[in-house]
Amino acid sequence: MSTIKDVAKSAGVSIATVSRVLNKKGAVSPEAEKAVNRAMRQLDYHPNRMARALVRGKNNTIGVVLPFFNNPFWSEIAQEIERNAKDQGYHVLFSISPGGEKELEQCISYLRASQVCGIIQTFSASQEVWSAIVKNVGVPFVALISDLKGVPSIVSDDTQGGILATRHLIARGCKNLVHISGDLHLIKHADERTFAFVEECKKKNVAYRIYESQPAKLTQEDNAELINRIFYENPQMDGIFASNDIIATQCVSYALSQGFRIPEDIRIVGYDDISVSSQIYPPLTTIRQNYAMLARAAVRAVVDIVHGKEPKPLEIIPVELIERKTT
Amino acid sequence: MSTIKDVAKSAGVSIATVSRVLNKKGAVSPEAEKAVNRAMRQLDYHPNRMARALVRGKNNTIGVVLPFFNNPFWSEIAQEIERNAKDQGYHVLFSISPGGEKELEQCISYLRASQVCGIIQTFSASQEVWSAIVKNVGVPFVALISDLKGVPSIVSDDTQGGILATRHLIARGCKNLVHISGDLHLIKHADERTFAFVEECKKKNVAYRIYESQPAKLTQEDNAELINRIFYENPQMDGIFASNDIIATQCVSYALSQGFRIPEDIRIVGYDDISVSSQIYPPLTTIRQNYAMLARAAVRAVVDIVHGKEPKPLEIIPVELIERKTT
Repeated sequence: MSTIKDVAKSAGVSIATVSRVLNKKGAVSPEAEKAVNRAMRQLDYHPNRMARALVRGKNNTIGVVLPFFNNPFWSEIAQEIERNAKDQGYHVLFSISPGGEKELEQCISYLRASQVCGIIQTFSASQEVWSAIVKNVGVPFVALISDLKGVPSIVSDDTQGGILATRHLIARGCKNLVHISGDLHLIKHADERTFAFVEECKKKNVAYRIYESQPAKLTQEDNAELINRIFYENPQMDGIFASNDIIATQCVSYALSQGFRIPEDIRIVGYDDISVSSQIYPPLTTIRQNYAMLARAAVRAVVDIVHGKEPKPLEIIPVELIERKTT
Repeated sequence: MSTIKDVAKSAGVSIATVSRVLNKKGAVSPEAEKAVNRAMRQLDYHPNRMARALVRGKNNTIGVVLPFFNNPFWSEIAQEIERNAKDQGYHVLFSISPGGEKELEQCISYLRASQVCGIIQTFSASQEVWSAIVKNVGVPFVALISDLKGVPSIVSDDTQGGILATRHLIARGCKNLVHISGDLHLIKHADERTFAFVEECKKKNVAYRIYESQPAKLTQEDNAELINRIFYENPQMDGIFASNDIIATQCVSYALSQGFRIPEDIRIVGYDDISVSSQIYPPLTTIRQNYAMLARAAVRAVVDIVHGKEPKPLEIIPVELIERKTT
């Protein structure tokens, strides 16, 4: 590998001149600049960007903290963040945290160590955990999917999502609804789906029950047991609104395996619209989160802060009911 | 945020002394070291690890290049790499490349810029593209899922996978098989599945046809058209071996939507055993790739090279037939 010394020698200039060209700082004659650029090309010299970023004190890399990919939702989000960041000239480094305050702190500390210009966190941890962490971040910090006090946050319109799903099931004739929520102890934005479900059922005088799943700890077996219990305890149930497409898919499979007809005997609505939801049979009716808009808003918020602009404290991205064959 | 200056002031030592403590280099009195460590704790000072890594010339971060998450296979691999690296005291930064020589080079250049101690690439690009890139990497480099000349490579036993899938379909009575392969122009290790399929069919005198899918370019619609065409052109077909679980799932859905009974009318085997494969109905028979072993071998290979040990040039990880309800 060639070094800055080799470039200087080949271009017939001093190392300081090469450095000035690399860092676009200080006076360099046009001839010297041309010679340096030519030498770098000829020698296939790749300057250590990080060292340069350290010198210049900036970088065009955005760090993203993701939870374990226990739901394809996160990989769809990751993909869209990558795509949007690239469009705006930014590179993305992803760091996966299995959760827990210490792990999150470590993740962020590693991203900071990589001199990222900003961090997007997509984690639904509790407000307290985040408040403690955010205080010490030291770079622009944006929350995606969670709504954090004092941090620019981008979320889906989960109230609207809950309303759309519940109204759709009721409009299709459901009179006994079950909702499978996420872990309600975490106090997260997605809980709005549950609150909206309850309100709609009450308004329309429809019987309902709520079952809480714990996605963070969930293995597939836990889900199976929960779903089994829901069907056993609710013989009258004619509709399910599940808080994500994975659990909804498992409800569809369980119902079919027990001889239920879908949608005649039971109607099922999921949430997220991950790609598998349209690939299963029957394809799943669901609430689509707009991955592209969520990612674009998050990247833009980071870039805005980097450029000294004030982003919106809370941006709410619309969701959409996608009617397929399970309702 | 507190700085190295604050630490020096609070500890009553010079900045040079703090730096010597941080970098574990040069003589420092035990008292001074204690004072510095105490001051760092009190001031909640987080030294810039990257700057220190640059000084010391090493780091405990492994970079991983992933393709776009168009298949949950990649997120399962990512998760296991993270888990295994952590167990060995390493942190992981992931970089997503949508493919193409230039994008790959850029991805790797960004990871190098983050001073990673080694790179795992999980991309199935062509040998020529990689040869060109690998030459200039400059850090330990390991290929996972692809088999690259001159680079320590970890792959699944795809020959065995192809044999297991084909023999299983034939043992269940199939006489007219279709195999949906990946893009055979890329010349990748997964092609062994196809070669093994052909050999088994020939040995057992079973009629077969191969259809090539192009996962890199595939949208869901392309898959639907391909599957439609396969069913139309092969009315005698009684078994499908698909090269990944996503296409297999789509075959299951298509067959059910057309009134085929599974497995009575048609038997379907996938490849990968992503988590959704056991969640659909009927649950999918598939060839399980051992994500944990693949990831562990890749992390170990990087760590070995970092420590000056020679890793195996090629490690082949066993696969397993998982019999579920589609056969």
